[in-house]
Amino acid sequence: MPPRPTRAEALCEEDNDPRSLPGASASLRPGGKGAGGGICHSAAPNGPSASYSAGTAMPPSRWTAAWLLLLQGCSVGRSQPAASPRTDVRDCSVDPPYLPPTATNTSARLTALRDAMRAHNIHAYIVPSTDAHMSEYIAERDARLGWLTGFTGSAGTGVVTEDRAALWTDSRYWTQAERQLDCNWELQRTTWIESIGTWIVELVPAGGNVSLDPFLFSIDTWHSYQQALQGSGIALLPMETNLVDQVWGNQRPPSPSSYIYSLPEEFTGLFNLRGDDIPYNPVFYSYTLLTATNISLFVDSARLTAEAQQSLRSGCPGPLCVELLDYGQVSAHLRHYAQGNATIWLGTEYTTYGLYSIIPQEKLLEDSYSPVMLAKAVKNAKEQELLRAAHVRDAVAVIQYLLWLEKMVPQGQVDEFSGARHVDALRWAQQHSRGPSFESISASGLNAALAHYSPANGSSRQLSVDEMYLMDTGGQYLDGTTDITRTVHWGTPTPLQKEAYTRVLMGNIDLSRLVFPSDTAGRTVETFARRALWEVGLNYGHGTGHGIGNFLSVHEWPVGFQSNNVPLTAGMFTSIEPGYYRDGEFGIRIEDVVLVVEAQTKHPTGEKPFLTFEVVSLVPYDRNLIDVSLLSQEHIQYLNAYYETIRARVGPELQRQQLEEEYRWLQRSTEPFPQSSAASATAAMLGMLAVTSLTSVLLAELQA
Amino acid sequence: MPPRPTRAEALCEEDNDPRSLPGASASLRPGGKGAGGGICHSAAPNGPSASYSAGTAMPPSRWTAAWLLLLQGCSVGRSQPAASPRTDVRDCSVDPPYLPPTATNTSARLTALRDAMRAHNIHAYIVPSTDAHMSEYIAERDARLGWLTGFTGSAGTGVVTEDRAALWTDSRYWTQAERQLDCNWELQRTTWIESIGTWIVELVPAGGNVSLDPFLFSIDTWHSYQQALQGSGIALLPMETNLVDQVWGNQRPPSPSSYIYSLPEEFTGLFNLRGDDIPYNPVFYSYTLLTATNISLFVDSARLTAEAQQSLRSGCPGPLCVELLDYGQVSAHLRHYAQGNATIWLGTEYTTYGLYSIIPQEKLLEDSYSPVMLAKAVKNAKEQELLRAAHVRDAVAVIQYLLWLEKMVPQGQVDEFSGARHVDALRWAQQHSRGPSFESISASGLNAALAHYSPANGSSRQLSVDEMYLMDTGGQYLDGTTDITRTVHWGTPTPLQKEAYTRVLMGNIDLSRLVFPSDTAGRTVETFARRALWEVGLNYGHGTGHGIGNFLSVHEWPVGFQSNNVPLTAGMFTSIEPGYYRDGEFGIRIEDVVLVVEAQTKHPTGEKPFLTFEVVSLVPYDRNLIDVSLLSQEHIQYLNAYYETIRARVGPELQRQQLEEEYRWLQRSTEPFPQSSAASATAAMLGMLAVTSLTSVLLAELQA
Repeated sequence: MPPRPTRAEALCEEDNDPRSLPGASASLRPGGKGAGGGICHSAAPNGPSASYSAGTAMPPSRWTAAWLLLLQGCSVGRSQPAASPRTDVRDCSVDPPYLPPTATNTSARLTALRDAMRAHNIHAYIVPSTDAHMSEYIAERDARLGWLTGFTGSAGTGVVTEDRAALWTDSRYWTQAERQLDCNWELQRTTWIESIGTWIVELVPAGGNVSLDPFLFSIDTWHSYQQALQGSGIALLPMETNLVDQVWGNQRPPSPSSYIYSLPEEFTGLFNLRGDDIPYNPVFYSYTLLTATNISLFVDSARLTAEAQQSLRSGCPGPLCVELLDYGQVSAHLRHYAQGNATIWLGTEYTTYGLYSIIPQEKLLEDSYSPVMLAKAVKNAKEQELLRAAHVRDAVAVIQYLLWLEKMVPQGQVDEFSGARHVDALRWAQQHSRGPSFESISASGLNAALAHYSPANGSSRQLSVDEMYLMDTGGQYLDGTTDITRTVHWGTPTPLQKEAYTRVLMGNIDLSRLVFPSDTAGRTVETFARRALWEVGLNYGHGTGHGIGNFLSVHEWPVGFQSNNVPLTAGMFTSIEPGYYRDGEFGIRIEDVVLVVEAQTKHPTGEKPFLTFEVVSLVPYDRNLIDVSLLSQEHIQYLNAYYETIRARVGPELQRQQLEEEYRWLQRSTEPFPQSSAASATAAMLGMLAVTSLTSVLLAELQA
Repeated sequence: MPPRPTRAEALCEEDNDPRSLPGASASLRPGGKGAGGGICHSAAPNGPSASYSAGTAMPPSRWTAAWLLLLQGCSVGRSQPAASPRTDVRDCSVDPPYLPPTATNTSARLTALRDAMRAHNIHAYIVPSTDAHMSEYIAERDARLGWLTGFTGSAGTGVVTEDRAALWTDSRYWTQAERQLDCNWELQRTTWIESIGTWIVELVPAGGNVSLDPFLFSIDTWHSYQQALQGSGIALLPMETNLVDQVWGNQRPPSPSSYIYSLPEEFTGLFNLRGDDIPYNPVFYSYTLLTATNISLFVDSARLTAEAQQSLRSGCPGPLCVELLDYGQVSAHLRHYAQGNATIWLGTEYTTYGLYSIIPQEKLLEDSYSPVMLAKAVKNAKEQELLRAAHVRDAVAVIQYLLWLEKMVPQGQVDEFSGARHVDALRWAQQHSRGPSFESISASGLNAALAHYSPANGSSRQLSVDEMYLMDTGGQYLDGTTDITRTVHWGTPTPLQKEAYTRVLMGNIDLSRLVFPSDTAGRTVETFARRALWEVGLNYGHGTGHGIGNFLSVHEWPVGFQSNNVPLTAGMFTSIEPGYYRDGEFGIRIEDVVLVVEAQTKHPTGEKPFLTFEVVSLVPYDRNLIDVSLLSQEHIQYLNAYYETIRARVGPELQRQQLEEEYRWLQRSTEPFPQSSAASATAAMLGMLAVTSLTSVLLAELQA
């Protein structure tokens, strides 16, 4: 699953493939440049919305409105070049406004919130999409932005003033927002905090108050808001009473009450505890305070199973004894602790401003990431083995699915939704499975150009031998978390599809086989995954990979290739996932999870070894989409070695599970590519095609 | 000429090839990690110092001292593993201390400075190596650190307390510092401001005062010092009276009085003024305040030639009229201007804290770089043509030199110093020449492993057919500034030398031929220049390139491949200069200046074109050092196309200058490489060497 977008500018373009960082629903301004705006394209949204278009001509008034909106820099609404008026999105320019059935009436909620704001003398209130732990996925109870606005996208920021309300979100959610918002809400097509600040400064008079819940914003984000409001005379006030929660009242979903369980001994971690508080992520709400002498865990202890309680007590008395304290006690406890002779070390990207503001400045030791997060990022030998093992069983499920598709798609028996359900079921059947690690992305044809498209029952596209199909799925297993993307075509791909697929594969290989020094930053090498595309003027708009947990989050930062990720170190796992997306036509992504390992180099290196990647995802690529003539000798050698590894590791597991047909499919799909192909490719480049007789002899020798 | 080092850590290692950023004599701490220390290696210094070793055995007491020093983490002194005591560096462990003749007695200066400090109630005083314009090269008058310490390296920071004095500098200057400092000074082998802060906090009591001249520190550096002293109870006080200048008194060199001249009409810029205030850089001391209605130039106007005065007046009255104000009036004028209704835009990396502190916070608009600097970074079509033209004449001088070396070196007639003088003379003879653009680097054998080695008369190494020779030189011309590095071998290189040279060349080519999207950050693609080296466990410890001016500084930031450089844009010039350095053996660097240009891609791109590089340095590489079997087909195609360009552009100029022998040398040196080499290389990889008869036929066809 791809990480958040990398292109800081041109936010109005379709950048196709973002997935927000936890806590990054509003973006910090990168670098020192102004930006913020970017050029807006008027391309009509593609994908599922196409099925909504009707055959009637667009009335002239709509045209005028559309052009005006365009000139406004895409602040509200969306242009409509086609002659068919859409019924799937709102139209606030008509009277009365047109709202699709997917929109939520938020008038009463806004009125109640504004009453609460007035009671606190607040002129603008900021509502984020994350929770108190900067989670990427959140529980229903924390979906404050969704409840207030009707918008259910995973990343966004809402701001409400006395008479205006606006939602900021990124390009992948613009259409969705137009379907879900009512006309109380302006849609702002950017996520820069600077832009939010500018909007607030225009509406709130100097001397006014802007407020937010300090336990829902990271320290870094807080500082960005402070900077955005600097010099405006507007005060930014943290207020622990969350006004949305107050208005939400008893309609708000209750706190999770499910058990928090301990992992069996063979699966190891820090507390070895897991819970189900958030979909797809086996985590539970808690805080930890680690001191030189104590370990405090702030959690609803009634939810711990007897085994979990026992496992925490097993270190008592002693330095590994875990003291259980109530989740709600964390602020009071920290305040008390900070009064002593202590220095408190925290990470500013994932700690809330609420906790930070409790600690006196002179007692703070700030880093971007907490030392716990950095320690967790490097997996020990046991964890590495567990994750490798989970990937073998995961490969079995994916191979079962690919074979099933090969048989079912030509019969017209599969749509995106039923496909996703089937691969989920195949994963559930594997040992140690705990379900998918994120909502399966199953996208056919033009839907795959929307990098995070997930199909819905009843409206999903049928899979066909005439279209490419992209599946980006993953599983949670007690021994690890997986995430893999394969793109396939069962018929005859176009030359462009084949070239683009091959170049995406080349990028995946070029990065996967790279040898690089210890402590290299991912952002400085991720361009190797793009070079083959760049060469012909192609690119992709998302990041190249993200860290992944051991039966934890599928996006586990700060490992990966983003600009704020930590340097690559042996023992880290990350995905490598270049892609290519063609609006309204098709989408390609090839994703593998890799482990950072020491490299053996020809020349001996200094103290720190050089590194490279070991691919732990074990599913072959679609031969039907590979143009071998574009591959170098090194690419083919790499592919063949990878396929040998797949055979050696997955073959026996398929046989153990008595999946004989799948075993034969694997053997077919991992046949070595003829190395002579490279020679013939070189030959082709040399303009030697005329010398066919000679070349044939040469090839014959090679194959001998 | 290489930019500053990229390796933030392991500062005690020889990282060979740093050249400081202007204003970066003390380093800001990169990223969020602790670091600061690093592991110290005990390797003996190589290079010219080797000639100082005598044959006597090391006395036991020296051994003990050496080991103690090592254990201290290389704080003072240097270990001495060989049995020959050195007389070129100080030894503060003996009584009386041993000082080489190169050391300066600084006792009187320090006493005077401490008297001045006491008079101002200052407990520590910080002295930087730069001037009020964050210059990389400085005038003698600004060499405060050099005067106070005796140390003449281009980058360092001195701190003086009541009874201690220390100098911080980076690895390339450690030996030089041990030769030039007396025992009043501790040598600190790091440049982190954090380390300077720690040292100060240990020595200055809470409530004490640390002071510096705010006009010699950038805003960013100021903030780093503030952060380093945070929570210590020590005050950081800017003081406009420079205490070193006060103590230096009338021994301080006078202000420059040479003419400031205007450029002829055919060479264009902002003010079109140049001066000679700083060696190698045709610049003069000045400030500019650009407002919506006025252009103020703060300069010693008496130094302007009549033509220069006239050219500035030519826009008067009108918006392009330049108002001349005295250099010393800048603070007062800015203070007055800032009282009005104004917002003042400045860059924090190159503006001093002194100017910044004059402006009220609410009137500041801060960016890393000023808009003038960013505008200057993109050269217009005229400037591009000028810079290209300067490179043609520069290539003539370098080719003359290479031919001359070929003839003279086998006769034992050239040493590093005489070689440098000769290439400087050849450049001077070219049209529009204004001398070298930096001190010529001319390094033979093991000296080339010191990336910034410049030879001195009388002690320089003789060039030989048995060693590699590295020349990194450049010229100032009225129409442009050049900078080129070639490494050559006139005899039989070792296999490692040949492989390393070829891989450095592959890196140069891989980056030069890269196609990439607009606004790509240089730091994200500079790794293409390293990949071929990384593949076999090799690397280099400096940056990959720097911007370059039009008859201005040879290092013109913020263009280049460093982490704080701005994204690459069409019209920017930068060097590309990978290298490889083997301590005590040899050094390789291949540097070209390139222009960022639009690329023609197979697939049409969006609004912003893809970019690539056009190489404007026009001197062939040493064939004797190229192992063609390592090159890909693409490398050879690229090389042959580049050589065709050289022939087309430099050939006619050689003929115009009637340099017939050089013309023939050029033709020989730019013979196309047989493209079949790639095929045979591929063949070799395919294990086809046995099929010689077939291959021969194939090659014959190819060459036909």
